[in-house]
Amino acid sequence: MKTLEEIGEREAIRIIQSILSKGGEAVGIGDDCAAFEINGKYLLISTDMITASTHIPKGMTPWEIGWFIAAINFSDIAAKGGDILGMVLSLGLPANVSEDFLVSIIEGADACARSYKTSIVGGDTKEDKELTLCGTVFGMVPREHFIGRKGAEVGDIVAVTGYLGKAAAGFFALQKGYNKKDLTKDLFQPTPRVLEGIRLGELKIIHSSMDISDGLSSSLYQLSEINEVGFEIWLDSIPISDKLMAVCDSQECIDDGILHFGGDYELLLILPEDKFLEAKHELELFGTNLTKIGRVREDSDILIKNRRGVYSILPDLGYEHFKHR
Amino acid sequence: MKTLEEIGEREAIRIIQSILSKGGEAVGIGDDCAAFEINGKYLLISTDMITASTHIPKGMTPWEIGWFIAAINFSDIAAKGGDILGMVLSLGLPANVSEDFLVSIIEGADACARSYKTSIVGGDTKEDKELTLCGTVFGMVPREHFIGRKGAEVGDIVAVTGYLGKAAAGFFALQKGYNKKDLTKDLFQPTPRVLEGIRLGELKIIHSSMDISDGLSSSLYQLSEINEVGFEIWLDSIPISDKLMAVCDSQECIDDGILHFGGDYELLLILPEDKFLEAKHELELFGTNLTKIGRVREDSDILIKNRRGVYSILPDLGYEHFKHR
Repeated sequence: MKTLEEIGEREAIRIIQSILSKGGEAVGIGDDCAAFEINGKYLLISTDMITASTHIPKGMTPWEIGWFIAAINFSDIAAKGGDILGMVLSLGLPANVSEDFLVSIIEGADACARSYKTSIVGGDTKEDKELTLCGTVFGMVPREHFIGRKGAEVGDIVAVTGYLGKAAAGFFALQKGYNKKDLTKDLFQPTPRVLEGIRLGELKIIHSSMDISDGLSSSLYQLSEINEVGFEIWLDSIPISDKLMAVCDSQECIDDGILHFGGDYELLLILPEDKFLEAKHELELFGTNLTKIGRVREDSDILIKNRRGVYSILPDLGYEHFKHR
Repeated sequence: MKTLEEIGEREAIRIIQSILSKGGEAVGIGDDCAAFEINGKYLLISTDMITASTHIPKGMTPWEIGWFIAAINFSDIAAKGGDILGMVLSLGLPANVSEDFLVSIIEGADACARSYKTSIVGGDTKEDKELTLCGTVFGMVPREHFIGRKGAEVGDIVAVTGYLGKAAAGFFALQKGYNKKDLTKDLFQPTPRVLEGIRLGELKIIHSSMDISDGLSSSLYQLSEINEVGFEIWLDSIPISDKLMAVCDSQECIDDGILHFGGDYELLLILPEDKFLEAKHELELFGTNLTKIGRVREDSDILIKNRRGVYSILPDLGYEHFKHR
């Protein structure tokens, strides 16, 4: 009998998916959020859990931990074009945790909720050997504004919001012992694209969307499977975070940061080429850039065009829990 | 600086509540569910976390663990008169957990969901030092059928569904080394009162409701605080589980089991005396009994009338996390 360490997170999720019965949901497991139809709108639900050993690097303050669990949940609603109604937050806490630590976590989560004009409306606290936070966010989106993961069409273009490698920059900086707050800020305090997501939904031009929390390569493999298409990605076109450039001292470091490193809560979007400028223009109103980085292919290969113009298969190196890279 | 062990779960929750900003919710922290108004209905949300060290006694199978996390979440919707839309389930799992163990947890949760005609629609899996399950359930209830915790009136009666001490019987049986499946069934595989809750909501006669997962005394103290009333409870009237009678060899054991022991997912209801028979009759249609056990008092004392007819203050001995009794 295999352990989770041997099968990895994605196989575990496949097993879970194969067991669960379908209920009244319009969209179920396999998308960023589940969706239920209520009076012509979709109620969106998503949940994310973080644990000390997998998601909470040393140096992250309790305030940032609180912000982080809220932000990564909000990002799932953002990726579907939804507006956030609220979030519940459960905490598994070691008994020797101080009152101050708890207060800071809650203040961080509350600050994140407030900055997206929403709130934490409930939760649970339990004793746990390891610090464990579980957030569940829910939101609403008019059904016709909902952007699922499924919907990519051959010939569509692939685009990303913002710059990639911001979280990687923070992680690499910590590894190298640089202790500058501005380098770790995007890793510890990500800013989900909530207003951008709502606007993109309203435009009704995005065929497929997900957040790239697991890294670009992993996200592309997930979209490839659900859409039964492939992609070509142009390495030269990927918008690179200034911070990553500052931290890396090799091209390999930069490429790893933008292709395979998780933690950038940007949106990965698939849309018709002739709608790209409209989307780009709309996001500029929020101060957010949108960059074309590739194209949808008919066969299922995911190719990367390197800086010398040569195509090869993009490996799927995104972070996977239980399995250790 | 105090630790959570020193302040206890209820004080921790008070601290959390004092920090969080209010958002658009109609009902927030302090009730079984948060509620948001959507088109004249309430969207209900509740979350529960369980961890190996606090909620998963030895002898509980992974299938039962899965059932349990679903059942205790459903119970919170039941207590508000709501119908369940679905649940998301996050799992924190040690890396050495077997595939079989995971499959059984999911099968248990799915079985519970199916038996209440709902489904598990999403989740997350993360590595954790300790087995940790976090469920978030959501449901709907017409606004006029919603039953909050607040609403008790002086002179109302206090009633409970079913029999108390079923979970205590299982716990005591395990302590004594009795290993009979029928004694632990109610502890490991509780049956939330979902259909009963919906019907009670429709009747529009219940002033206040909560589930008594934390034990009767603890639940009464919580209702007392939120309603600014007291209670008198008649020990002789409390319906006692046959299993508790079979396991206990003293009156103290029985009284502890029905008054202070958590884990019975029955409903604690407060309603006008002249509506009691109507409620009782309606619940009989589901094969569920309803028993009058006390009355709402004007001052804030919570009194217990013992089997000799003598009144005294009922101590608040319900289980509290972090603090150890």
